[in-house]
Amino acid sequence: MFSDPPDAAVPAGCAIEFIHTYSLIHDDLPALDNDDLRRGKPTCHKKYGEAIAILAGDGLLTLAFETLAQTPVEASRGVRLIAEVARAAGTVRGMVGGQVADLEAEKTRADLATLEYIHRSKTAALIRAACVVGAIAGGAADADVERLRNFGENIGWAFQVVDDILDVEESSAALGKTAGKDQAQQKATYPALLGLTQSREVATELAAKAIAELEPFGARGGNLRQLAEFLVERRS
Amino acid sequence: MFSDPPDAAVPAGCAIEFIHTYSLIHDDLPALDNDDLRRGKPTCHKKYGEAIAILAGDGLLTLAFETLAQTPVEASRGVRLIAEVARAAGTVRGMVGGQVADLEAEKTRADLATLEYIHRSKTAALIRAACVVGAIAGGAADADVERLRNFGENIGWAFQVVDDILDVEESSAALGKTAGKDQAQQKATYPALLGLTQSREVATELAAKAIAELEPFGARGGNLRQLAEFLVERRS
Repeated sequence: MFSDPPDAAVPAGCAIEFIHTYSLIHDDLPALDNDDLRRGKPTCHKKYGEAIAILAGDGLLTLAFETLAQTPVEASRGVRLIAEVARAAGTVRGMVGGQVADLEAEKTRADLATLEYIHRSKTAALIRAACVVGAIAGGAADADVERLRNFGENIGWAFQVVDDILDVEESSAALGKTAGKDQAQQKATYPALLGLTQSREVATELAAKAIAELEPFGARGGNLRQLAEFLVERRS
Repeated sequence: MFSDPPDAAVPAGCAIEFIHTYSLIHDDLPALDNDDLRRGKPTCHKKYGEAIAILAGDGLLTLAFETLAQTPVEASRGVRLIAEVARAAGTVRGMVGGQVADLEAEKTRADLATLEYIHRSKTAALIRAACVVGAIAGGAADADVERLRNFGENIGWAFQVVDDILDVEESSAALGKTAGKDQAQQKATYPALLGLTQSREVATELAAKAIAELEPFGARGGNLRQLAEFLVERRS
């Protein structure tokens, strides 16, 4: 149904990771989450200063699109890849829009609909794009791209719900980033709104919905199925 | 030699302006130039706070690529546009790289070669890209794209030399941004290294080199010629 040539998939994968890293560097800045620890190490601005951290993020975001434009696929697929990633990273139901909604939510008591919007925009959008660019680069049929889009959306959402849970349950040492920050900053989270037990149920349901999208792929969906299961079971 | 259909040129022009605006918003941040005034108004972070200013810049940079991906041109041209703009905005001889070199130069006494690198990367690259995307969107022949690339590079460089001069000669009211900042921050500039008279000569020579590239276009190059002349004569 779709092949997955490394030549086409690698630049797109790198681009997604550049965007992921840029978003972490900027989110950790003093004006945003003001975090000192990331992946068990000092955050970029702690080590290199705020100016370089801002520019490192800007550089990575730009490099993502430079890399995507060099993906060795036919041009029409290249443009689709770029549009997909830009939308996911952007302001309308994308990462930047989700981050702004998250900032706004700190001032109010966000309801579940707002929290869903934040999680789907801030986190699920990029994970969804990662699944879709793999499918487009590999030449998947439109119906399969759509299944992988839904898969990505649901595991991305589940990932963020679990992230909220781990922020409560785990230590900074286990997470490699500062634990307990959500509550300290009175962030809107699933545990804060639904409690831990119901939050776990939401994550499990989302993963199950994601896995159901893989059904037509049979055995070839094995890795993605394991990924969905892992995201819910992870402890860090 | 090249047509210039509005449908194709407008999104590319918007994308360039989104990147221009993002770069001003981020450069004005406290961690970078720490500027309070831009276009005669409070800078983005003064009005909306640092978090929103960082995210506004990120959002505009992303929107530029989303917009470029929607340019109504054939896909192979679309990918070329995106690669060109990403390179200009990026880290290797692009805007982010130029900004980093500029930061580094504040700590040392930069020589003319370093200053040239900074001006060409930080400023000329985007103006060059603006000229090139217009040519590509309009379907120009490769040789004409190259002429417009050289034209843009030279007027961009001249623009920044004049910017350095105006920072010394003009008032904040005339510029709509804080004047005299370069000297206050001991920035490497053309006037600081060559004096005002020789700096004016450099700007005039660069504009003349740019105008020479337009020669094959005859009367159709009139607007661009006027632009090159204006950039050197401007007082704000």
